[in-house]
Amino acid sequence: MYYTAVAAAFGFRVTRTDGAARTGTLRTAHGVIDTPAFMPVGTQGVVKALTPRDLRDVGAQVVLANTYHLLLRPGDALVARRGGLHRFMGWSGPLATDSGGYQVFSLGARRSIDDDGVSFRSHLDGRPVRLTPESATDVQVRLGADLTMAFDECTPYPATEDEAHASMERTLRWARRSRERFLAWRAGRAGGGEAMTTPAQAQFGVVQGGVHPGLREVSARETVGLDFDAYAIGGLSVGEPPAVMYETAGLTAAGLPADRPRYLMGIGMPDDLVETVARGVDLFDCVLPTRNARNGQLFTSRGPLSIKGAVHAEDDRPPDPDCRCYTCRNFSRAYLRHLHVAREMTAATLNTLHNLHFYLDTMRRMREAIASGAFEVFRQAFHRAYSRRPRHELPDD
Amino acid sequence: MYYTAVAAAFGFRVTRTDGAARTGTLRTAHGVIDTPAFMPVGTQGVVKALTPRDLRDVGAQVVLANTYHLLLRPGDALVARRGGLHRFMGWSGPLATDSGGYQVFSLGARRSIDDDGVSFRSHLDGRPVRLTPESATDVQVRLGADLTMAFDECTPYPATEDEAHASMERTLRWARRSRERFLAWRAGRAGGGEAMTTPAQAQFGVVQGGVHPGLREVSARETVGLDFDAYAIGGLSVGEPPAVMYETAGLTAAGLPADRPRYLMGIGMPDDLVETVARGVDLFDCVLPTRNARNGQLFTSRGPLSIKGAVHAEDDRPPDPDCRCYTCRNFSRAYLRHLHVAREMTAATLNTLHNLHFYLDTMRRMREAIASGAFEVFRQAFHRAYSRRPRHELPDD
Repeated sequence: MYYTAVAAAFGFRVTRTDGAARTGTLRTAHGVIDTPAFMPVGTQGVVKALTPRDLRDVGAQVVLANTYHLLLRPGDALVARRGGLHRFMGWSGPLATDSGGYQVFSLGARRSIDDDGVSFRSHLDGRPVRLTPESATDVQVRLGADLTMAFDECTPYPATEDEAHASMERTLRWARRSRERFLAWRAGRAGGGEAMTTPAQAQFGVVQGGVHPGLREVSARETVGLDFDAYAIGGLSVGEPPAVMYETAGLTAAGLPADRPRYLMGIGMPDDLVETVARGVDLFDCVLPTRNARNGQLFTSRGPLSIKGAVHAEDDRPPDPDCRCYTCRNFSRAYLRHLHVAREMTAATLNTLHNLHFYLDTMRRMREAIASGAFEVFRQAFHRAYSRRPRHELPDD
Repeated sequence: MYYTAVAAAFGFRVTRTDGAARTGTLRTAHGVIDTPAFMPVGTQGVVKALTPRDLRDVGAQVVLANTYHLLLRPGDALVARRGGLHRFMGWSGPLATDSGGYQVFSLGARRSIDDDGVSFRSHLDGRPVRLTPESATDVQVRLGADLTMAFDECTPYPATEDEAHASMERTLRWARRSRERFLAWRAGRAGGGEAMTTPAQAQFGVVQGGVHPGLREVSARETVGLDFDAYAIGGLSVGEPPAVMYETAGLTAAGLPADRPRYLMGIGMPDDLVETVARGVDLFDCVLPTRNARNGQLFTSRGPLSIKGAVHAEDDRPPDPDCRCYTCRNFSRAYLRHLHVAREMTAATLNTLHNLHFYLDTMRRMREAIASGAFEVFRQAFHRAYSRRPRHELPDD
């Protein structure tokens, strides 16, 4: 039993493989993450409509916060003065932050990219802000999440191979600068005497390259050459067909070292998780379970169920008869529909609890299937039951 | 040890008196309520931003839902078909409902009152609805709360003595009809064979009479003559000065039988609770702790604190250093301000948990003070510490 120790208290160990799928243990200064793992998104330092004890209750082991949002409000320096993001948001478990890149690139006309970094205007008050590989690293060091990301450019889809190539090269140059800055912090040579709030922080390098296998291969090899603590697969689920996403994620994962965690950023639908765990991915984050909960969509073992419809008005069954979450144990579809129609905030809470439970329970079932060498059996059974098309009534209801 | 048994499983026992203040035990089919008690308001069948387990956690023993809102959506018949409001909303403890009168009278131009009842248009879709003493009773029987209210007219303030007298007389006529209808249900002679979902339901008669002592006296005597299971004091906190409210509540309470619960409807501020417990009130409900929480106002032992202000941006202290609620044990003013400014729903949840804890803990402290014969000491200490003026910083912070 060993961990790839890249810094005190951070380490990763693959515990079992089944085909390309694997289970592992990701150790951080704030606790252990069993992989494959799903990270609920807490954009502004809170998972919307939940409290930290709700997150514990649904079995969350790690939360991902957004660097872009926290940088703008309340600001990374303010969070650092509060003792870091864990303490600020009352979450004592592992935390991850993204690099801010994805949100910045989504700003469209409000941002301009040059080779040194990105300038943009805050969506809150229009004030100009600049992010570079160095400053994105600094912000994440100040926030103090256990898992941080190198600053990358998210290649749009579609992109020509030339465009994707230029973008991938820029991400590589930024990866080098992000890594240098991070190692300077780790060595106590950055921040002008400012200490890291979380000394065992890990930094992920981000692989880009669009949907072009050759570019993905180069990006993976060169990024791995910079010896990050772990690796993320970026630039997917931006419009490409699912089959292309699966294939690209799979070949990128195959090009990453087996002894480091692999994080597929911003993915995905429940069936996406199953298909990319099958291809060797260890970590995920996505706003779907939380955002769709607020819009009245509940994920179930048979597919997404819209709770808004009049068909549920007198339905005394729980959303998912197979589910053991707080919501399904205590409330009917009729009540959840009433709360949604009446625009009650508690609707968002109960739906979010259910959706996160479904996501986290699906991860748990995958870990068990891998551990018992039966992942392929699980995968087939999952797809037989699950349909990704949202419905007002579940099949076989 | 005895209970005034007015129906199977319903009963009230005064356990201790201290001046006019008293502690008691109110027994219902869904559990016991220790009085003096505060009932959080769950307007649409949910206490906004909370789940039933949150309510248990803050120590709520009973919740009040609004007949007017539930009648319009999802409808009393639908709730009855779900097995009643307890089951529908997942709250297994005691429930109360108001008569719908107060909300209907608040509709202003959208309602017209005649001696038989009130016609109004739904604020949701404009459809015409009619409430009478009989139908308001039927709706509450179908919802199935443990504590229900006779249909009354809330006398406006100011009102001449003649106006208040006419209104009080109408409430008395409606009280008689409400009681007759309720007893018909209890005897199995109403509802066309429909069974009561909560057989031990109690019905409160409502005393009106504005701020006119003579009218209050008549109203109390005549209402008590109808032999309700318990009594409510209505028509207060509608604009009259606090001192007048206290005096009117006190003399009305004194005119009610000592062996029945006394409920002061829609009251109030924390100091109002202390002053009217001192005058013999047992039960309260009010939207203040929950509504003000959503607006960023936190009640503390020193008064209401506005969490919005920039003064809290870097304040690592809990909202109320004397408080042991989940919010105060885990989150700083800085974080709560961030959540409020960022319009996160979790702000409403955490603020509501705190405010309800403060209200319910104040009730608990009053019960303890009465039980030890030290209510006057508590009352003086409470007023020394508490200022009802909302502030951005607490005194002696």
